Amino acid sequence: MSSPDYVHGRSSRESDRLDYQASRLAELLHGGTRYPDDSTVLEAACGVGAQTVILAGNSPGADFTCIDISPESLAIAESRARAAGVTRATFRHADIYDLPFPPESFDHVFVCFLLEHLKDPLLALRNLKGVLRQGGTITVIEGDHGSALFYPESAAARAVIRCLIDLQARMGGNALIGRELRHLLNDAGFSGVRVSPRQVYADGSSPESGDAVKNIFIAMVEGVRDPAIGSGMITRENWEQGIRDLYRTTEKDGSFSYTFFKCVAEKTVNYHRKMCG
Amino acid sequence: MSSPDYVHGRSSRESDRLDYQASRLAELLHGGTRYPDDSTVLEAACGVGAQTVILAGNSPGADFTCIDISPESLAIAESRARAAGVTRATFRHADIYDLPFPPESFDHVFVCFLLEHLKDPLLALRNLKGVLRQGGTITVIEGDHGSALFYPESAAARAVIRCLIDLQARMGGNALIGRELRHLLNDAGFSGVRVSPRQVYADGSSPESGDAVKNIFIAMVEGVRDPAIGSGMITRENWEQGIRDLYRTTEKDGSFSYTFFKCVAEKTVNYHRKMCG
Repeated sequence: MSSPDYVHGRSSRESDRLDYQASRLAELLHGGTRYPDDSTVLEAACGVGAQTVILAGNSPGADFTCIDISPESLAIAESRARAAGVTRATFRHADIYDLPFPPESFDHVFVCFLLEHLKDPLLALRNLKGVLRQGGTITVIEGDHGSALFYPESAAARAVIRCLIDLQARMGGNALIGRELRHLLNDAGFSGVRVSPRQVYADGSSPESGDAVKNIFIAMVEGVRDPAIGSGMITRENWEQGIRDLYRTTEKDGSFSYTFFKCVAEKTVNYHRKMCG
Repeated sequence: MSSPDYVHGRSSRESDRLDYQASRLAELLHGGTRYPDDSTVLEAACGVGAQTVILAGNSPGADFTCIDISPESLAIAESRARAAGVTRATFRHADIYDLPFPPESFDHVFVCFLLEHLKDPLLALRNLKGVLRQGGTITVIEGDHGSALFYPESAAARAVIRCLIDLQARMGGNALIGRELRHLLNDAGFSGVRVSPRQVYADGSSPESGDAVKNIFIAMVEGVRDPAIGSGMITRENWEQGIRDLYRTTEKDGSFSYTFFKCVAEKTVNYHRKMCG
């Protein structure tokens, strides 16, 4: 089985980036997400398990089923979860568009950084709703690259970010999906949809926050260097200028902020809709 | 005495907008700002007093001195503060570039939505530092129009926001100043500079939040309609499309977010600097 294309690739550098991101943003993204003992949770698209370890660690009494489209990623996720002492998680190869579970199999669904890569996020959400039991919740976390705000402002830096957005769009994804979560969850038929933006801010007052910008955001953008230049989207010179300008925002007098969107919603029976069509 | 130009104008609609904004965002912006009894606070650029009433209400034992460059605004601020029962505030016409106070007159300085309109925000901050006592604090709140993130995305909406940014820049201001607060406060010689971004998010889950977008942000943009079209920056048709698209973000499936930046810093003696040059 081969893994489908993924804009960020599946290099070990990317895997390190995902780990750093997950641990650095653990509280910001996972804050408020705790599952009851013995509840069943589907983690859709666990990737290399960067979020799995945190997710399962925060709810040690819940049973996790972690799926991914990439068998290679899944194998890494499983071995890392084991190494981290996660015992109540099973790993299974699965396609979000063809889920191998009976209807209403799970009490909860957790999705992080998945929808942004899908050609049909609405269909994926509907499928996830199908395997979620009545009264269960779905939690979705996505970024939005349009939220990047930095000083010094730079057209060259905007251009390299735009390369990532455009490459992701060419692969059918949407790097600006965070702002759309509410309407997507609504359209998929979930109820009680609540979105909470979670903003990270970095400036010279904390060198660690600048490191986070480098290791999470800039590393992600740098990951598309070759396809961006290779496809003629941008010249090598402009690329290098843009990356330099992004690093410049992590210097002493710079600043950088970015917003993740976290959305929680429920699957509830809509009696009115059932009765009246 | 006449009032200098101000990108938002001084109409009664603008005054209403400022009031709505201040009350709607009171907790978001003033959260954490409380001054001890009998401390002296300079509110620099109180305008029509939209923030003054909240600021003084939150610290009823402190003594406020509220200044503004516009005598007309100041008169409104004073009568509204009186009507709101604010007793420990005095109002005085003053120029931020020529402050009529002896050095170290105040325990604290509060500045909201001022620096974005100034040709020389650094000089203003240095002047404010001069009238602040050693050990006192300065609190600065500014927006950043580059932080506006909305769905549906729209080039026309971006264009009308850009008109406001450009008009403000032509008048010497900077509507993207929020992200710069740390370096400005640092450069002005303050210490312990801490920035906390404060994000507002609106979507169809709360009709009131959509009203806030209309009454605060869109109304602000609409305020520059005549100069934007009149100066040839944008055609009437494009303007109207952009405004329609901004309103569109407040509909049921839309979303809108915006980030204010709040910064607190201290004036401390730097003995090393004093001794070593």
